[in-house]
Amino acid sequence: MNDTTQALLLHRRDDRGVHTITLNAPRSFNVLSEGMMAAFQHALNDVALDQKARVVVVAAEGRAFCAGHDLKQMRAQPELAYYQALFAQCSRMMMAVRKLEVPVIARVQGLATAAGCQLVAQCDLAVAAREATFGVNGIDVGLFCATPSVALSRNMLPKQAMEMLLTGDFISADEARVRGLVNRVVAADELDAEVAALVDRLLTKPREALAMGKALFYRQLETGMESAYQLAGQSMACNMVHEVAQEGVQAFIEKRSPSW
Amino acid sequence: MNDTTQALLLHRRDDRGVHTITLNAPRSFNVLSEGMMAAFQHALNDVALDQKARVVVVAAEGRAFCAGHDLKQMRAQPELAYYQALFAQCSRMMMAVRKLEVPVIARVQGLATAAGCQLVAQCDLAVAAREATFGVNGIDVGLFCATPSVALSRNMLPKQAMEMLLTGDFISADEARVRGLVNRVVAADELDAEVAALVDRLLTKPREALAMGKALFYRQLETGMESAYQLAGQSMACNMVHEVAQEGVQAFIEKRSPSW
Amino acid sequence: MNDTTQALLLHRRDDRGVHTITLNAPRSFNVLSEGMMAAFQHALNDVALDQKARVVVVAAEGRAFCAGHDLKQMRAQPELAYYQALFAQCSRMMMAVRKLEVPVIARVQGLATAAGCQLVAQCDLAVAAREATFGVNGIDVGLFCATPSVALSRNMLPKQAMEMLLTGDFISADEARVRGLVNRVVAADELDAEVAALVDRLLTKPREALAMGKALFYRQLETGMESAYQLAGQSMACNMVHEVAQEGVQAFIEKRSPSW
Repeated sequence: MNDTTQALLLHRRDDRGVHTITLNAPRSFNVLSEGMMAAFQHALNDVALDQKARVVVVAAEGRAFCAGHDLKQMRAQPELAYYQALFAQCSRMMMAVRKLEVPVIARVQGLATAAGCQLVAQCDLAVAAREATFGVNGIDVGLFCATPSVALSRNMLPKQAMEMLLTGDFISADEARVRGLVNRVVAADELDAEVAALVDRLLTKPREALAMGKALFYRQLETGMESAYQLAGQSMACNMVHEVAQEGVQAFIEKRSPSW
Repeated sequence: MNDTTQALLLHRRDDRGVHTITLNAPRSFNVLSEGMMAAFQHALNDVALDQKARVVVVAAEGRAFCAGHDLKQMRAQPELAYYQALFAQCSRMMMAVRKLEVPVIARVQGLATAAGCQLVAQCDLAVAAREATFGVNGIDVGLFCATPSVALSRNMLPKQAMEMLLTGDFISADEARVRGLVNRVVAADELDAEVAALVDRLLTKPREALAMGKALFYRQLETGMESAYQLAGQSMACNMVHEVAQEGVQAFIEKRSPSW
Repeated sequence: MNDTTQALLLHRRDDRGVHTITLNAPRSFNVLSEGMMAAFQHALNDVALDQKARVVVVAAEGRAFCAGHDLKQMRAQPELAYYQALFAQCSRMMMAVRKLEVPVIARVQGLATAAGCQLVAQCDLAVAAREATFGVNGIDVGLFCATPSVALSRNMLPKQAMEMLLTGDFISADEARVRGLVNRVVAADELDAEVAALVDRLLTKPREALAMGKALFYRQLETGMESAYQLAGQSMACNMVHEVAQEGVQAFIEKRSPSW
C-alpha cells in the first residue's frame, strides 16, 4: 500500500499509519467513473484491513477536487439496472468512508461538485482552500443530486441544502464553513500545513478511542436521545476499561503525558 | 386559476406555470382564519392538479406577511374538538406545501408570527425583505406555538428555536438567514426582483427532476443514512433514465444547452 | 429547598419559583463526582416535586463551570460494571434536565468540559460569559466523550461537533453561540443581569404553557414531520382549552394584559 495501486488513484501510507488517497485524474476533473470508484473502494478496503491505520486524508490532483459522476460513461449505458448498480456502488463507497474506524479528512483544493461535494460531506472532517467551491448542480443537466443530498443534508441546515440542490448554485469555501460542510478554510498555500496539523493532532489520540468514538457518534445520531444515551453509556464504559483510557486517566492524575 | 378565486386570497398563474398565492387580508394581518386556510388549501390543491405548474410563490398583501391564527375566531369556540380540527386543518395545509411536487418559495415582506412564521419555515425556500421579522410568540397569550415548532425546529438549531418559542422574542431577517429560516435577505424594494430571479433560475431546470428531487429530499431526511442512500439511489436511477436527464447529460457532453 | 441541601451543591429557590442550582466544588472545578451527581439529581427531583417551580438556573462557583467527570474517582474503580452504572447515573441526570417541566437555563461563567459541556448542551437555554470556553476533550486522556456527544450533536451541526470530539479542541463562547450551543454571550460582569432578564422574561409566561411546550418540543423532534404535526396539534388543542390560553387570548382581544 506504500505506492500507487491504480493509475486513477494514488494511495500512500506513511509509517505513522496516515493514509493519503489522492484522486488522480485531473484532466477529467477527477470524476467518479466506475474505475475511479472501484479504485477508491479498494483503497478504503485496504485501510480497513490495516490494523495500524490512524487517519485517512482524501485529496485530489489538479484544479478540481472532484466533479462528481462520469456523465459520458453514464450516458453510454442508458439502462435503469445500470444506473441502479452505479448509484449503489457509489453509496457503498460513501458508507465505507463512514464505516472506517479511523477519521477521514477531506483536503479540498478546488471545485467539489455533485458526488464530489457529497464526498466532502461524507468525510468526518474537511479542510478547504479558500478558492474551493461547492455545488450539487446535477439539476443543471436535469439530474437532481439525490444521493449527494443524503450527505449534504446531514452536514448543513435543510433550507440551505435545498437551495443548493434546486438551483445548482455554488457556494464559496467560507460559506461552506459557515454552513457546516467544511471545518477549516485556509489560503491555498497553507492547505497542506493545515491538514498536516489536523492529522498530527489526531495522531496524539489513541486509535482505539477514536474508533469507538467515531462509530458511536454516527450510530447515536440516528436514534432518539434516550436510546442514544444507552448506546453512548455502553460505549464509554467499554472505552474506560480499555488500557488506553486507564493509562490516559492515570497520566492525567500524575500530571504527565500518557505513554500510548 | 388565472384570477382571484377567493376574496381572502389572490391566486395568479402566469403562462410559465408560476403560481403566486397571495394572502389578501392585510387589515387583519393576513391571519390564518378558517376561511383563509380553506382558500389556501384550495389554491394548493389547484396547483397540485396543474400538471404544468413549475413554482409556487407564497406572498402577502400589506405590512404583515402573516400573523398566525385568528385568535378572535378561536376564542369564540372554546371547545377541544374545535381546536383539534382547526390545528389538523392547519397541519394538513402545511403538509400540502411540502407534498406539492413543485418548489414553494415564501416571499416575506413583513412580520411573520406564529403559524405565519411556520408557513415560512414550511416552504422549501424563503426570500425576505430586511424589514421582515420572525417570531413564534403564541406563548405571550399563553399558547405555546406547538405546531409552528414542528417546522421551525426542522429549519434551525434546537436551542435557537427553543429560545424563540419560550420567550416569544422576535428575530430580524438577517438573523433568520443566519439561523437557516430564510435563504436570502434583500432591501424591500429589491424583494420582487430577488424572488423573480430565483423563480427564473428554477424555471431553467426540468420540472420532473425538481419534483423527484423535492420528494426524495424530505423523505430521505427522516430515515437513517443507510436507508436514505437506498431511497436516493433508486430515485436518482429513475431520474437518470428519464428523457430530461438523458437530454441534459447529452447536451452537457455536446457543450450545448439542453432542449427541454 | 430554600437553603443548601448538600455541601457540594447550593440549591436556592426564590419566592417566584426560580430554582438556582449551583455546583459548589470550585477547587475540583465542579467535577461530576458520584456525590455531585447524586446531589444534582436530588435537586432536580425536588424541582420536579415543586408544583410552583417556574425556571431552573444551573450555575457554578469558581472559575470553572464544570470539568466533567471525576477522573480520580473513576480511576480508583477500574471495573466495567462500575463505569456502566456511573454513565447510567449521569445519563439519567441529563435526561432529568430534559424531563423537567420547567425551562432550564445554564449560566456558564467559565470552562465547560466533557460532561460539563454536555450539561450546557442538555439545558434548554444557555447564557455564557465571554471568557467561558467549551470542549469535549475526553479524547485527550484516551476516553472519547461518547455521552457528551449525545447532547452536543443535538445542539450543533455534525462536522462541528465531530471536530471538537476528535481533536479535544476548545471553542470560545462566541463560537459556541454561532454553533448553537449557547444562546447569548455577555461580558462576565453582565452575566447575572442577562440571566435575570431571561428568567424575568420566562416568568411573564404561564407555567402550564411552557410545560406543555417543552415536553412537546423534544418529543416531536424525534419523529417524522407528519406524526410530529399530529403530536403538536393535540398538544396545542389541549393548551388552547386551558384557562391560561383562554384568558391570554381574551386579554389580547381586549388589548389588556392577561391576569395569570
